[in-house]
Amino acid sequence: MKIGILGTGDVGCVLGAGFAGRGHKVMIGTRNPAAQKVQDWLEQTGNDARTGTFAGAAAFGEAVVIAIGWPHLQNVIELAGAGNFAGKLVMDATNPLRFETEGQPPVLDVGHTDSAGELVQRLLPEARVVKAFNIVGNPHMVDPDFPEGKPDMFICGNDANAKKTTGELIESLGWPPVIDLGGIENSRYLEPLAMVWIRHFFNQGFNGNHAFKLLRK
Amino acid sequence: MKIGILGTGDVGCVLGAGFAGRGHKVMIGTRNPAAQKVQDWLEQTGNDARTGTFAGAAAFGEAVVIAIGWPHLQNVIELAGAGNFAGKLVMDATNPLRFETEGQPPVLDVGHTDSAGELVQRLLPEARVVKAFNIVGNPHMVDPDFPEGKPDMFICGNDANAKKTTGELIESLGWPPVIDLGGIENSRYLEPLAMVWIRHFFNQGFNGNHAFKLLRK
Repeated sequence: MKIGILGTGDVGCVLGAGFAGRGHKVMIGTRNPAAQKVQDWLEQTGNDARTGTFAGAAAFGEAVVIAIGWPHLQNVIELAGAGNFAGKLVMDATNPLRFETEGQPPVLDVGHTDSAGELVQRLLPEARVVKAFNIVGNPHMVDPDFPEGKPDMFICGNDANAKKTTGELIESLGWPPVIDLGGIENSRYLEPLAMVWIRHFFNQGFNGNHAFKLLRK
Repeated sequence: MKIGILGTGDVGCVLGAGFAGRGHKVMIGTRNPAAQKVQDWLEQTGNDARTGTFAGAAAFGEAVVIAIGWPHLQNVIELAGAGNFAGKLVMDATNPLRFETEGQPPVLDVGHTDSAGELVQRLLPEARVVKAFNIVGNPHMVDPDFPEGKPDMFICGNDANAKKTTGELIESLGWPPVIDLGGIENSRYLEPLAMVWIRHFFNQGFNGNHAFKLLRK
């Protein structure tokens, strides 16, 4: 599958390399494809991965991952061009984080009656947006593995087929079958769940070796 | 320890019986102590458990559990009398659920900039409020056990000693050491986490055999 990744932060780089390593064709989009960090990623990733502009990566992908910091989200979507997402699966990995105090955990900038996931769906009304990858730190996004088992990925979105494809893509990265909460408005619960992860990260002295599992019987 | 329980819904009855079975002295408070359901609970629980009014149970407890449905929360706290909570550990198990459509999942009535946990702390400024027991269904509140291990309880609150006692009480019910997220404002994340549990409950056809675990390494 051709996958466009928007954003060359840790999340974009990890997911891009993960998908490229599973036989997908990946283009990572960025303001500055010539940046050393991006070139380093390209060299380390191999597997025919490529770089481009935001618009180039969005146009390239049959599915597109949004891995952009919250302050830049709307601008990047404008730069990428809404038309380049039309009809496509768009996996939104963002969290609406507002950092208020140096060294302290962020807070959510939107919530309760709205969410980043819903905003992305509104900005891209012709896309099939699925919230995914937002509830775990990037070191555990590919082949997550803990002594007590594998964590679970929660997703939500309005389009059943888009969620089915998302589930297959996430399983290809070494996850168990995803847990689908329902429509994209469930981002109002999954973004606070990211905050539980983040608070624990700060409480443990910036140790991110944790992830959620839904025990079942 | 003397524990007052406010509320004779499933949560109050399960926690009351659980604490009574661990050697604590329990009084469960209700509008109508003579109700058949309450008398049945008393007979089944044994262990010197007793019933009383809301004010009686709050006065009785060295620690008090609030297990009241959201629409009645403020009224019950008024009936119980704020002075009866002063200086005490108060474990708030409530979720601010608003049921809008029959058979459909509820939504949160407050969130993002406020939470039920913070409301309880404001209503009881002299109490040491700890959010606890709100992220799991009542069948798993005592001796939780799943094929893949034991779930985790997340708590938060402003008073370190109150959280320490809460942790000991929760461990006495068969849980592993609790995970403390920080101040009571973290209820803004733990109440949406309850919604993840509730959404999955509805999605699975009202099957509540699930609970969260935080994998670590």
